Amino acid sequence: MSKGLPKRSEDYSLWYNELVKRADLAENSAVRGCMVIKPYGYSIWEKIQAQLDIMFKETGHSNAYFPLFIPKSYLSKEASHIEGFAKECAVVTHYRLKNSEDGKSVIVDPDAKLEEELIVRPTSETVIWSTYKNWIQSYRDLPLLVNQWANVVRWEMRTRLFLRTSEFLWQEGHTAHATKQEAIDETVQMMNVYAQFAQEFMALPVVKGVKTENERFAGAVDTYCIEAMMQDGKALQAGTSHFLGQNFAKAFDVKFATKEGGLEYVWGTSWGVSTRLMGALIMAHSDDNGLVLPPKLAPIQVVIIPIYRGDAELEILSIKAKEIMAKLKAKGISVKFDNRDTFKPGWKFAEYELKGVPIRIALGPRDLENNSLEIARRDTLTKETIHLDGVILEDYIIGLLDEIQENIYQKAFSFKNEMTTEADTWEEFQSILDNKGGFVSAHWDGTTATEEKIKELSKATIRCIPLDRKEEEGKCILTGQPSSGRVLFARAY
Amino acid sequence: MSKGLPKRSEDYSLWYNELVKRADLAENSAVRGCMVIKPYGYSIWEKIQAQLDIMFKETGHSNAYFPLFIPKSYLSKEASHIEGFAKECAVVTHYRLKNSEDGKSVIVDPDAKLEEELIVRPTSETVIWSTYKNWIQSYRDLPLLVNQWANVVRWEMRTRLFLRTSEFLWQEGHTAHATKQEAIDETVQMMNVYAQFAQEFMALPVVKGVKTENERFAGAVDTYCIEAMMQDGKALQAGTSHFLGQNFAKAFDVKFATKEGGLEYVWGTSWGVSTRLMGALIMAHSDDNGLVLPPKLAPIQVVIIPIYRGDAELEILSIKAKEIMAKLKAKGISVKFDNRDTFKPGWKFAEYELKGVPIRIALGPRDLENNSLEIARRDTLTKETIHLDGVILEDYIIGLLDEIQENIYQKAFSFKNEMTTEADTWEEFQSILDNKGGFVSAHWDGTTATEEKIKELSKATIRCIPLDRKEEEGKCILTGQPSSGRVLFARAY
Ligand SMILES: [Zn+2]
Ligand SMILES: [Zn+2]
Repeated sequence: MSKGLPKRSEDYSLWYNELVKRADLAENSAVRGCMVIKPYGYSIWEKIQAQLDIMFKETGHSNAYFPLFIPKSYLSKEASHIEGFAKECAVVTHYRLKNSEDGKSVIVDPDAKLEEELIVRPTSETVIWSTYKNWIQSYRDLPLLVNQWANVVRWEMRTRLFLRTSEFLWQEGHTAHATKQEAIDETVQMMNVYAQFAQEFMALPVVKGVKTENERFAGAVDTYCIEAMMQDGKALQAGTSHFLGQNFAKAFDVKFATKEGGLEYVWGTSWGVSTRLMGALIMAHSDDNGLVLPPKLAPIQVVIIPIYRGDAELEILSIKAKEIMAKLKAKGISVKFDNRDTFKPGWKFAEYELKGVPIRIALGPRDLENNSLEIARRDTLTKETIHLDGVILEDYIIGLLDEIQENIYQKAFSFKNEMTTEADTWEEFQSILDNKGGFVSAHWDGTTATEEKIKELSKATIRCIPLDRKEEEGKCILTGQPSSGRVLFARAY
Repeated sequence: MSKGLPKRSEDYSLWYNELVKRADLAENSAVRGCMVIKPYGYSIWEKIQAQLDIMFKETGHSNAYFPLFIPKSYLSKEASHIEGFAKECAVVTHYRLKNSEDGKSVIVDPDAKLEEELIVRPTSETVIWSTYKNWIQSYRDLPLLVNQWANVVRWEMRTRLFLRTSEFLWQEGHTAHATKQEAIDETVQMMNVYAQFAQEFMALPVVKGVKTENERFAGAVDTYCIEAMMQDGKALQAGTSHFLGQNFAKAFDVKFATKEGGLEYVWGTSWGVSTRLMGALIMAHSDDNGLVLPPKLAPIQVVIIPIYRGDAELEILSIKAKEIMAKLKAKGISVKFDNRDTFKPGWKFAEYELKGVPIRIALGPRDLENNSLEIARRDTLTKETIHLDGVILEDYIIGLLDEIQENIYQKAFSFKNEMTTEADTWEEFQSILDNKGGFVSAHWDGTTATEEKIKELSKATIRCIPLDRKEEEGKCILTGQPSSGRVLFARAY
């Protein structure tokens, strides 16, 4: 860490980019659009993965792994899938290199051309449903509840670390069911799992809703989603869950023998979240000093920094620090003692602020004398000296971590509410978008034409039709046509 | 599961293929050479991953993620790397599809040709060292201890599930150090981590050794490895750890400022194991009834099968089964109660035998009367009735799981020893390979020419120069030239 970050108020986008790099989260690689996720950033992703994986397994899912490559012909089997899906894909055409004639480099061997090109998976519905055809014969094989953790590639021209990269990491759930209702229930359940994860672990309040036809996943009958609000007033889609109807079952001829002896197409769902969640986590909570991590996803929850002169003092402080570490670790708290003599305390303070460590304990000789500790909170940037007489330190820290988690959530929750505004006229609508930002709750006539016109005029899209919206008579913000309830608009990532 | 497996003694190779498919471990996909790892197989891989990940972190490593794609020019930067490395790689040449003129399919957009082709990573040294150049400036940035869990692609013409597939999953550690000795120590440490994992978790005894120059990883100064013996007398390389010297640092210009103010090239290592371990696990222990899993890697350690007539009986047995499950789960044992009424007990017995579940508990009405259980062991295929009076069931099961783990290891250990034979003449050497198989410990004159000649004549390769070999004067098995110690030959996977 060197000089300060750019300020959010001056250049939010630059602030984000610099924060991601300086906090050692990720960086651009030499390959256009592909990122390197650095160890510190990856350790946050591991915490996200671990918790989601628990929640997927608790809801009955198992992990599996399907091929990276998809035969080109598969992509055109489900008509609306290929129609709607972006065609910016990485295409493998050859399977061998050879030495160049001068021997100094390698070239693609023209004799090693594939008969059918392979597409690096942009999502795996096609390859998975072609596999499910063999896995599903009878109602006894259903439901099939599978998830995959994988890398996917969608060639992007304009990329931003975590938010939009050509290669990203994600999970994709793909389930198959005997009935329509069961598949819909699964779709809604997984949207709820995502919402719960966002709120309880990422401290990120979200709106649950359904996408309009226009914004739906290519090949889905319905797309459910969770939408979050970033500090700059832009929305971010944090997860989607698709009810696929029988579309992929029909495209790949996946039928099952029913209990009653019939033969029916299977009902499907798919659902996913990606390393984009890292972008949401960073943008939702961080400040001009750096990352602010909710304790439940912080790889280091507590850092202890010794304030000392000379090796003798450090040695005495180390004994105390190791005592504290042992106590906290026994309670499952991740704690780091940074006793490096190659950096000064002030540098370390700034470094762990930048990295979003929720609690910093500073420990000097006077603290030993007074049986005290200086404890600083990353979320509020406040610090206080705690006298340890009669205090059970580990309980105090657990309580404080809970308080920080809750405080970060409440702050984001209030912000999201403040940033949700009703608009009843087109002027209001535009003025809110231009001056305040955030979600705009407004009536819409339900047509794709109007939706697209509004997008063209305002750069705002319909983020979702909230599940909890009230029935309310109204008039479309643009056309004045009748509407039975508001939808959420926003400019979005 | 339908009819029985082929027998190992009749067709080992067919037995393996059928076992992998019928035990729901993996299957071939529609994409040539790429496999689908099925949920049950993947759950074993998850246990392998989880334990290795713990061991990597205990030895100070962090995970990170690097791009899937490598610019073609990178591959030729380290001369011996590209020279020695197989060039069977998947090559991405285009980044977009478009609709065909008839609108019925998609074609590769000829306008979307990449300026420089991208190679799907066959291993990541080049892309990682090009990144390390920016991460390493000073001795304070060292050591850099990073691991990556990822998919890699090496185009294979002849593939076998888990053992050789075009795409496979693996981990690759890539570390950078200030001194040669530290890098060598790291290389040896990681070989030892692999050996410990193989022995303690996979119940797989291994030989630790160094590869000959001929068998060394392309770009390495030394390759350490662990070699295991399969039931058909063929060896399998289960993991490798490479001391890279300064080769990649020089190729990618990675220097660091020393404490003393100098500027030096960094020393490197890399090390990896892959889904090939699944093949080793299956082939080392399984029998003609199916998989035999060491308890420490079994996704289901105990299965409870109710033997009943009618719903009322099942209900009573279920109460007891749930009691047992709760007790075992509280001790961290993974247990499944298979109360499906769609399959008969005999079918279930065969199914869990096929899937290698270490302990099967059968529970019938008479067991309730007698306070007993029928407990069957997968490894020995024996069963006994246990009276529960005065027995703490969970302790009994823990003890039995330990015993099974140990028994599987001991069996493999004895087998490996029996299958290691010294040969002192060429005739002996050939006879052992043709009639008995296994490792042949023999003298070799140390030249690549002889090594290759032996391979040509016998199909056996030098698996390694064992680390624990004794100094011993001898004569090369082929040329009669002097040798100072034996090396291990074998036909290998
Ligand atoms: Zn939405
Ligand atoms: Zn070896």
